[in-house]
Amino acid sequence: MNIFKTSSFAVPSHRTDGRTKSGGRVYGTDRWLVHSFLHAIGDPVMRVVLWDGKSIPETTSSSAVGMVVNDRATLVRLLTNPLLHFGDDYSAGRIEIEGGLVRFMETAYRALAKAPKYRRISDPAAYRRNQPNLNSLPESRQNIHCHYDIGNDFYKLWLDAEMLYTCAYFPDPAASLEDAQIAKMDLVCRKLRLQPGQSVVEAGCGWGGLARYMARQYGVNVKAYNISHEQIVYARQRARAEGLEGMVEYIEDDYRNITGTYDAFVSVGMLEHVGPDHYQELGRVIDRSLTEQGVGLIHTIGQNCAAPMSPWFLQRIFPGSYPPTIREMMTIFEPWGFTVLDVENLRLHYAKTCEHWLERFEQNKNRVREMFDEVFIRAWRLYLSGCVANFRTGTLQLFQVVFSRPGNNQLPWTRAHLALPSGES
Amino acid sequence: MNIFKTSSFAVPSHRTDGRTKSGGRVYGTDRWLVHSFLHAIGDPVMRVVLWDGKSIPETTSSSAVGMVVNDRATLVRLLTNPLLHFGDDYSAGRIEIEGGLVRFMETAYRALAKAPKYRRISDPAAYRRNQPNLNSLPESRQNIHCHYDIGNDFYKLWLDAEMLYTCAYFPDPAASLEDAQIAKMDLVCRKLRLQPGQSVVEAGCGWGGLARYMARQYGVNVKAYNISHEQIVYARQRARAEGLEGMVEYIEDDYRNITGTYDAFVSVGMLEHVGPDHYQELGRVIDRSLTEQGVGLIHTIGQNCAAPMSPWFLQRIFPGSYPPTIREMMTIFEPWGFTVLDVENLRLHYAKTCEHWLERFEQNKNRVREMFDEVFIRAWRLYLSGCVANFRTGTLQLFQVVFSRPGNNQLPWTRAHLALPSGES
Repeated sequence: MNIFKTSSFAVPSHRTDGRTKSGGRVYGTDRWLVHSFLHAIGDPVMRVVLWDGKSIPETTSSSAVGMVVNDRATLVRLLTNPLLHFGDDYSAGRIEIEGGLVRFMETAYRALAKAPKYRRISDPAAYRRNQPNLNSLPESRQNIHCHYDIGNDFYKLWLDAEMLYTCAYFPDPAASLEDAQIAKMDLVCRKLRLQPGQSVVEAGCGWGGLARYMARQYGVNVKAYNISHEQIVYARQRARAEGLEGMVEYIEDDYRNITGTYDAFVSVGMLEHVGPDHYQELGRVIDRSLTEQGVGLIHTIGQNCAAPMSPWFLQRIFPGSYPPTIREMMTIFEPWGFTVLDVENLRLHYAKTCEHWLERFEQNKNRVREMFDEVFIRAWRLYLSGCVANFRTGTLQLFQVVFSRPGNNQLPWTRAHLALPSGES
Repeated sequence: MNIFKTSSFAVPSHRTDGRTKSGGRVYGTDRWLVHSFLHAIGDPVMRVVLWDGKSIPETTSSSAVGMVVNDRATLVRLLTNPLLHFGDDYSAGRIEIEGGLVRFMETAYRALAKAPKYRRISDPAAYRRNQPNLNSLPESRQNIHCHYDIGNDFYKLWLDAEMLYTCAYFPDPAASLEDAQIAKMDLVCRKLRLQPGQSVVEAGCGWGGLARYMARQYGVNVKAYNISHEQIVYARQRARAEGLEGMVEYIEDDYRNITGTYDAFVSVGMLEHVGPDHYQELGRVIDRSLTEQGVGLIHTIGQNCAAPMSPWFLQRIFPGSYPPTIREMMTIFEPWGFTVLDVENLRLHYAKTCEHWLERFEQNKNRVREMFDEVFIRAWRLYLSGCVANFRTGTLQLFQVVFSRPGNNQLPWTRAHLALPSGES
């Protein structure tokens, strides 16, 4: 189930314990390669240390981040497709990071955001192979299988008790991940204004935590769709164990096959896997599924300006994924005349969520190693660290969008209903 | 200053005191004309009473709305360009309404929303003459002059004490218009997180109420731009009278000529007059005006799907106006990388605001008649009633959008800062 093609792990040839000294001046081709690479990714302020201990710049402040490249072949590869090969070579242990991986990625993302041309030197073929619009029904199944079916036991090691793999909501930055995920579910329920006895359809339910929460805490009946087999099996077990079988039905099927009409439509963390070409189709599904007074909520990773995810991310982590802009999301709503009632950007909450995941992942890395291998650990460390950095630097956003039909006047007068019952926000 | 071309007022030939009886069956051409008109506007459920007292349908429930057409020429005109001629002929007294004008307009808008083809039979030349993108600098001045410079004394008759001509915020539906306009200004200030000593630029300041409120209540320094001469004169007088000259500067100039950098950018009710072709230009102005940690807010009438305003509205009420969709608004933000933090839809608040305006307008119609004439009164009654109906039926929206730069992490953790200080929301 390991989708990493770089399966061989290179033992680092250069010590990277934070006490690396500069080993002299880099000349000639190597110097040109380093400068070209840095320029390609927007000239970030960072040190590049080569295999012989020499570095560019030769001296730097102790607070600066840096990368150690273990051989010349790696440096050459970095130039041909920086974003793909950085990920693969870091995963394979041919690149080490100084000054902290999250801080390094923040530095890189801030530079990349100002270097739109970096996309020109990435591999267009790789991007085409993984473009987000290739999410037809069978392709979606394969894409989702690659990420979500790699083992529930693995995700249990670093997710919260309810197994929520989406942005939490921290009423206070110091809240625990467990509390923040419950607060997120409750925020979603309050935005949907759920009432006992109502019916809810959930598109992309993960391990089913939100569906169970809605049924248990708000007394609604939920049909929850997901094409990840492992997740559905887990979700059904939990619902049985918690006595919620009568209220929650988990259906192993695609959002396009949703049937019935419901008082609420909710989708948390699925839109990233839908692809912009399918947004209008998703809107059609919502249009036929929502009652006249119904309320909908879509929670998704997003971005300020349209740009593909990096080829490494698309090939190694989330095939077929794409975080939409608000403009692109409107293709879900406009053709069917839906009204957007509320948009909330929870970007910093996702940075904090990913920090928790990364910390738990590192605490359990020995158990992850037993399941997979060192390359997998390093790849997921890079992925989770990159996510923290994405949300901290604003290269990714998290949008919660609430909507309803245009003529629906059964609306709350203010946002007072969104305040947490216990007033902790 | 009266921009209504139909200056002759026709004394109604048919009684419309709500006790109209049906006067028999309509035959032949008249029948075809009525049905064609009703079909063109989406087959609303309403009665049409002709000059001879006959009606279609012949009998109807007492709760139904209806229109009385005073002569055949009016009925023929209605068919050539329903939206333009309905407005003009109602204004001229050649059409009367049964069952309440707001209810009649609600019925019409609900039908029109389901009849996209109605646009085909409106006058394309009239639309081109008034298309919203014709808002170059001199054209903007002329468009704004037509509406806002028709006399401060007229607007004083039906606006609140602060002369706010934009959607209020009713913490409770029963709040007074005065209180709701103050609550709106305070909501805007809280969304901008204003701190004493900060600098604010306001694009399109109306009669200057928000600028004075921000200075007085939040201790900020405001530069407020407006191209309406009458409004600027009034705003300066009020600021002087209230001792706020040192903190508020009113500048009679276009938003495109804004200079300087500011901690906050705010625009309440101007975007409707900017035109989609100028959104990117507006974004450029904001980009050069906002500090790195700055916050911006745009408050505007909007719509779910892109469609022009009716030709009557464009020719008689607001030349050059256009309410954007959220998708269109993104053209302000995306090219400059701004992050959307919050969108709130205050549609029902605008319906309530317009109800208050309409009520005050009717209470003062004798004084309006002294200033203008009966045609003007009927046109503005139709305009204000139509606005109530637009916002009640969801054919128009009201969006408040908060944004900042992408790398700005000086963000509130939750929306707790938006709750009214006294907790009345």
